[in-house]
Amino acid sequence: MNYSIIFYILGWICIFQTGFMALPCVVAVIYGEREITGFLLSMLICLVIGVPLVLRKPKRQIYYTAESMATVSLSWIVLSLTGALPFLFTGSIHNPVDAIFETASGFTTTGASILPEVESLSHCVLFWRSFTHWVGGMGVLVFILSLLPLTGGSHMNLMKAESPGPSVERMLPKVKTTAMILYQIYFAMTVVQIIVLILAGMPVFDAFCIAFGTAGTGGFAITNNSLAAYAPHLQTITAVFCLLFGVNFNVYFLLVMKNFRGAFSSEEPRAYFGIVACAVAIITATTASFYHSAGRALHEAFFQVASIITTTGFGTTDFDLWPSAPKTVLVLLMLIGACAGSTGGGFKVSRLVIAMKNAHKEFKLFLHPNMVCKVKMDGKSVDLSVTRSINIFLVLYVLIFAVSCLLVSLDGYDLVTNFTAVAATFNNIGPGLAMVGPTQNFGFFSNFSKLVLIFDMLAGRLEIFPLMMLFYPPTWRKY
Amino acid sequence: MNYSIIFYILGWICIFQTGFMALPCVVAVIYGEREITGFLLSMLICLVIGVPLVLRKPKRQIYYTAESMATVSLSWIVLSLTGALPFLFTGSIHNPVDAIFETASGFTTTGASILPEVESLSHCVLFWRSFTHWVGGMGVLVFILSLLPLTGGSHMNLMKAESPGPSVERMLPKVKTTAMILYQIYFAMTVVQIIVLILAGMPVFDAFCIAFGTAGTGGFAITNNSLAAYAPHLQTITAVFCLLFGVNFNVYFLLVMKNFRGAFSSEEPRAYFGIVACAVAIITATTASFYHSAGRALHEAFFQVASIITTTGFGTTDFDLWPSAPKTVLVLLMLIGACAGSTGGGFKVSRLVIAMKNAHKEFKLFLHPNMVCKVKMDGKSVDLSVTRSINIFLVLYVLIFAVSCLLVSLDGYDLVTNFTAVAATFNNIGPGLAMVGPTQNFGFFSNFSKLVLIFDMLAGRLEIFPLMMLFYPPTWRKY
Repeated sequence: MNYSIIFYILGWICIFQTGFMALPCVVAVIYGEREITGFLLSMLICLVIGVPLVLRKPKRQIYYTAESMATVSLSWIVLSLTGALPFLFTGSIHNPVDAIFETASGFTTTGASILPEVESLSHCVLFWRSFTHWVGGMGVLVFILSLLPLTGGSHMNLMKAESPGPSVERMLPKVKTTAMILYQIYFAMTVVQIIVLILAGMPVFDAFCIAFGTAGTGGFAITNNSLAAYAPHLQTITAVFCLLFGVNFNVYFLLVMKNFRGAFSSEEPRAYFGIVACAVAIITATTASFYHSAGRALHEAFFQVASIITTTGFGTTDFDLWPSAPKTVLVLLMLIGACAGSTGGGFKVSRLVIAMKNAHKEFKLFLHPNMVCKVKMDGKSVDLSVTRSINIFLVLYVLIFAVSCLLVSLDGYDLVTNFTAVAATFNNIGPGLAMVGPTQNFGFFSNFSKLVLIFDMLAGRLEIFPLMMLFYPPTWRKY
Repeated sequence: MNYSIIFYILGWICIFQTGFMALPCVVAVIYGEREITGFLLSMLICLVIGVPLVLRKPKRQIYYTAESMATVSLSWIVLSLTGALPFLFTGSIHNPVDAIFETASGFTTTGASILPEVESLSHCVLFWRSFTHWVGGMGVLVFILSLLPLTGGSHMNLMKAESPGPSVERMLPKVKTTAMILYQIYFAMTVVQIIVLILAGMPVFDAFCIAFGTAGTGGFAITNNSLAAYAPHLQTITAVFCLLFGVNFNVYFLLVMKNFRGAFSSEEPRAYFGIVACAVAIITATTASFYHSAGRALHEAFFQVASIITTTGFGTTDFDLWPSAPKTVLVLLMLIGACAGSTGGGFKVSRLVIAMKNAHKEFKLFLHPNMVCKVKMDGKSVDLSVTRSINIFLVLYVLIFAVSCLLVSLDGYDLVTNFTAVAATFNNIGPGLAMVGPTQNFGFFSNFSKLVLIFDMLAGRLEIFPLMMLFYPPTWRKY
């Protein structure tokens, strides 16, 4: 374990965090809010921690998997801890665990809140809350490392550790170039959404915050009743952008590279839109009598499906009141999640597709035990190490899910609350059902349960392995 | 697909079913019950179907995996259908779907009932209900095939398809001999339990029925409040036998072969008893205040843990009233299940152990990507095909679970009811929580949901693959 390089990068994380906090300061100046002092104090603390760490340049710049994993996990923990400071210093949240919960929920693009109401918060705090989603959506570490003059280290390891999905494709020979194009796409799509929302009649400040929440598939809104506060056409625009941000960014990459055939023949987005269509159909059919109108049911079904499968978590209706069939569909969508390589969370559509193809292969092998049979995705055969890691991922996913449910159940709330609270945080969605339903919040849990759920959010965003490596002693062996 | 041999064996299944039904006839004679006519009529029908099938000897006796899988699945379906006849003909159950549910629940050793009360049933019907557990516990097909003069066919394939667990070890060179010794152990242990229960003061008829339910890890009782009807010491005896029948029978095999070192160093039973101890400790701690007595809490915790992890499903207390932490522990135990190679259901402890070892191996490989690293169980390295099939099993398990929950949710009951109804049938346990809690029954579900749950029971007992092969078209290709 090369400790010096880890501290060096954590220092840069603090410096960048200072930069991120400069934006809400601008907002505070515009609205003339006195909460700016809270942000300035937080920035000062970040600099005091960050600058000394950055000045001590590491001797060896070599990066193995262990360092990548540890750096990624620790970076996200540092982001969540330092990002919680403005909430505390502005007096918006008083309990430190609550502040960390809210910040981790922001950066991991979960969108689960401990705040019973948000409309009393000042503009700069609301902006900060939503902006953490945008920063967390594409991951910050790859961005930082693209700018840092580190030599010899493999950025591929880091990108693998921070990017969602079973396998990262290096689209261009240089990881840096690939990363930069992805960030540009992300930036451009967000700008488009902001413009579209403003043109459609949403106030400018709201458009920025909602677009941040959509782009990062986060889900923090700036009104107490989430997206229900806006006109139906604004809801539908947001739902469409949710779905777009849930698509594998490689598809957009291929489009930018003018490889249209590659983009449209990609298997994962097809499966993803197929699942969306089925879910919308089932929910519309089963809630039509609930809403006394098929049109209304279709509108709500489309919004909720887009919001939940992309793990965004915006709400327009209290789906906890729905009959149990559509509720079950939503829970299943929570577990599936969006495409790999998107900003969404969950198990990921491509993992599901590969796992099902593997199961199909097993049936073939039963009939013809000596058959040579390869699982293919997008025409290329899936590497055995990918298949294996998907299987291990499923094992760890189920285990962490089970243990989390058990720990949270110590608080004594009902099983649906516990199960969906874990599902909503582990898959970075936001709202669950029952006591953590779309009109509720997570404030009532004990600090212990909140820490468990913070762990789940981070584990979900970093796809389990990097965070678990922190708890695996051999990772820390010095060499 | 060799159709003639499948029909031949299904014929034998009917003949054996006739034999099984002779026992409740004896009971009917002893108690002078007029329900005997229902059993005699059922036996006649079984003979009329079975004898013609058996008389047409198959030309080719070769057995591939496809035939084994299809035969096993169809045999269990035939057992469930013909076994339902006595319930209908004696007038004990009127709805045919209910009768099939009750019988499938019996043979698959689930123990979920659609009957709101059982004390009004006649002795012969109660005996038949419990006896199906005993027949289903060890599997009937391997038994039949050990007696049939089939040559050239590999019984190993059949045994693999019918036996619970990730891998079947051929303990002795001949599968027949191995199977016969396992059946003898099963028979002997049941006899011991009957004797112990009678000596401890249980009525003879009750002792037989409860022992059948324990040995098969089924869970049908003959009183409305299950095991709560008996004295605490009888409950504890039953719980101990539940745990013993949940141990991998290979351990008893090794004991019979006087290989004590092998028996006691076996990893799976250790993990199994470890899980039992932890679960009892947690439940005792979290229900002590509920029962106002640590002693009472320990007694109930031990019974319920033994009953649930072995997927038996006997009850002594309404655990649906427990706080949520111990309830969550029970749900997790439901999913884990007993040891492979036992009569219990669920995911199986050995699958869990191997899956966790695999996850651990993955962590090692992250740090040292070129390391050669093998997963070992009982000192022997686990075959890659076993690891792979465990992973595929987990995928199918989760998929079937999800789809079943969705289908059952169409009835409109709450999520805990749906989730635990599927968990209780798919893992062959019996009771769930909420509306299918230990004091409730499955009668209120629609016929459609009951059919889904019957499928789950069969899929759970046959460990998914054989039943799924029925729905895989290439299985039926003629050659």
